[in-house]
Amino acid sequence: MREKITVREVGLRDGLQIHPTFMPTEDKLEWIAAEAAAGVGEIEVTSYVPPKLIPQFADAAEVTAGALKVPGLTVSALIPNLRGAQRGIDLGVHKLNFVMSVSHTHNLKNVRRTPEESVADFKAIVELIQQQPQDRRPLISGGLSTALGCSYEGKIAVDAIVRRAVELVEAGADELVVADTVGYADPLQVRAAFRAVMKEVGNVPVAAHFHDTRGTGLANVSAALDCGVTHFDASLAGLGGCPFAPGATGNIVMDDLCFMLDSMGYDTGVDLQRLLEVRKIIERSLPDIAMQGALAKAGLPTNYVPAAQRKAA
Amino acid sequence: MREKITVREVGLRDGLQIHPTFMPTEDKLEWIAAEAAAGVGEIEVTSYVPPKLIPQFADAAEVTAGALKVPGLTVSALIPNLRGAQRGIDLGVHKLNFVMSVSHTHNLKNVRRTPEESVADFKAIVELIQQQPQDRRPLISGGLSTALGCSYEGKIAVDAIVRRAVELVEAGADELVVADTVGYADPLQVRAAFRAVMKEVGNVPVAAHFHDTRGTGLANVSAALDCGVTHFDASLAGLGGCPFAPGATGNIVMDDLCFMLDSMGYDTGVDLQRLLEVRKIIERSLPDIAMQGALAKAGLPTNYVPAAQRKAA
Repeated sequence: MREKITVREVGLRDGLQIHPTFMPTEDKLEWIAAEAAAGVGEIEVTSYVPPKLIPQFADAAEVTAGALKVPGLTVSALIPNLRGAQRGIDLGVHKLNFVMSVSHTHNLKNVRRTPEESVADFKAIVELIQQQPQDRRPLISGGLSTALGCSYEGKIAVDAIVRRAVELVEAGADELVVADTVGYADPLQVRAAFRAVMKEVGNVPVAAHFHDTRGTGLANVSAALDCGVTHFDASLAGLGGCPFAPGATGNIVMDDLCFMLDSMGYDTGVDLQRLLEVRKIIERSLPDIAMQGALAKAGLPTNYVPAAQRKAA
Repeated sequence: MREKITVREVGLRDGLQIHPTFMPTEDKLEWIAAEAAAGVGEIEVTSYVPPKLIPQFADAAEVTAGALKVPGLTVSALIPNLRGAQRGIDLGVHKLNFVMSVSHTHNLKNVRRTPEESVADFKAIVELIQQQPQDRRPLISGGLSTALGCSYEGKIAVDAIVRRAVELVEAGADELVVADTVGYADPLQVRAAFRAVMKEVGNVPVAAHFHDTRGTGLANVSAALDCGVTHFDASLAGLGGCPFAPGATGNIVMDDLCFMLDSMGYDTGVDLQRLLEVRKIIERSLPDIAMQGALAKAGLPTNYVPAAQRKAA
C-alpha cells in the first residue's frame, strides 16, 4: 500500500488574491471542476472577506455554491473572522480556513489584532460552529501564517509556533496549517518546526503551506515528508506572489509538487497529464498572470510510469 | 565548526554550451573573476571540444589562461576524450572533468562510444596524466551523466551507476560526479543512488550535479546532503537547458543553492549579495539568455544573518 498524501489547491484564494484582474466566476468554476476531475480532492475556492477589500472575491457565494456541486470535492474557504465564519456556515462550505500570524507585527498589520486576540477570535468561531446543527457544522482549520519567517520580524522562534499551535488545537481546531508565507524556510528549519509542533498536538493533522519565494519550496516539502506531514497546500502553475517582493514567485507549484510526490511513489490520487491540462484554463482566462512550473515546460520523463501503475519494488 | 560545502560553477560550460550566441572572452573572464571574488572556489571554465563542434568554446585556451590568473581559484574544464585531456594538460588546467553516460544509448549518441569504450578512454587519460611530471598533473574527475535518468532509456538502474563509478575509481578518478543530466530525479532516487555509490568508492569524493528541469533540483540537493555529499555543481542564474526539452530550465540555480546552504548553516565561503551582483555581467553580455533564480527576484529575508556571522546556537 502506497502512503496517501493529500494535496490541496489554494490558487483560487492565495494565487488570485493579489492579482488585479478579476477572474470570471465561470472560469473559476471550470478550473475547480477540472482540477477536481484530475484528482485534487480539496480546493480552497475563495475567501469570505468583504468584496470592497478584495474585489477578486466578490463572487464568493457563487463560487462556493458551484464548487459544492462538484462530486467528492472537499470545498474550503479562507475566513478572516467570525463574520466570515458565519458566511461560510450559511453557504454550507465543508471547511473554514482560519488564518492568523505567528508574527505579532504581521498579525497587527494584517488583521489589526494581537495574536492573543486572534486566538480568542478562533475560540468564538469554534463556539459558533458548535452551535450549529450537527449536519451544518464545517470543519475548522487553524492556519499559522508567517510561522517560518516574517518580512517585519525576520526569524520566528519555534517556541512561538508551538504555543499558537497548541492554543488553536485546545480551542478545537480540526487541523493545523503551518505556513511559510514569505518563503524564508530551509529544510532544517522545516524539520525543526514541524517536529516540534507535531510532538505537541497529538493526532491533529498538521498541513504544510510553503511558498517558493527563494527556491526552497520543494526541498521544504521533502523535509516535511521526512517529519510525517501528509497534507500539502500548493497552487496550480505557482500562482500568487509575495506582497513584500513584487515579481517574486508565490505558492509552490501544484504540478511540480504532484510530479515529485508521484515520482517518490506516494499516492496523491492526481493524474499528472490531466492536471497539466488544467493550466490552460488559467492561461486563457488570465493571459497576463505569471505562471510558473518546470514540469509544464519539460514534460514527464521518458517512459514515466505513474505511481498508481507501478509494480511493487 | 560549520560543515564546509564546496559549490562549483558550471555555467560557463554547461550553461553556455547550448546557447547560440558567443559570449565575448572578456565577459567570460569578468564573470569568472567576479564569481571567484564572491567566494566560489571552483569553476568549470570551458570545454576542450573542437571549436567547429561548439563555437562557444573556440576561446578555450584564452579562457583557461585567464582563469588560471585568478588567485586561489580551482580551474576545471570538460574533456570529451584523450585529445581534450592533452589540451588541458598543455594549458595547465587544474582539473579535467571527463564525462561519460551511464545510459548506453545516450553514450552512443553523445560520444559514439559504448560505456565500456568510455571507461577504456578514461583509463588512457589517467595514464597520460601519470606520464606527466609531478607538477604538471591535473586532477581527474569522473563524471557519470544521465545517472538518474535518460531521455532515451528512462530509468537507470542503481547497479549500473555503481558499476561505472567503481570502474572510474579503480581507473584512478580523483573524484566522481553523479549527474541528473535531464532532471528526472526525486529525493528518494537521489538517496538510493548516492548511498549505493558512496558505499562502494571509499574515500573518493562524490559530487552531485543536478538539473532543475522538473523543479526537484534543490529538494535533491537536500537529499544528497542527507547522504553526506559535500560538493555540488550549479550554474549562476540557472543558465543552461535541456536539449530534449526546448525552453526547459537547466542546472540548479547557484544563487538559490548558496542561499539554501547558507540558511542551513553550511560554510560555502560565498557572499550571497556579491554573488547576486555577478548576474549583471551575464545580463549585460547576453541580454537574450534565459535567467532563472528566485532569490534574485525576492532578495534575502528581513534581518538575514549570513551563516558566517551567526553565533553558535
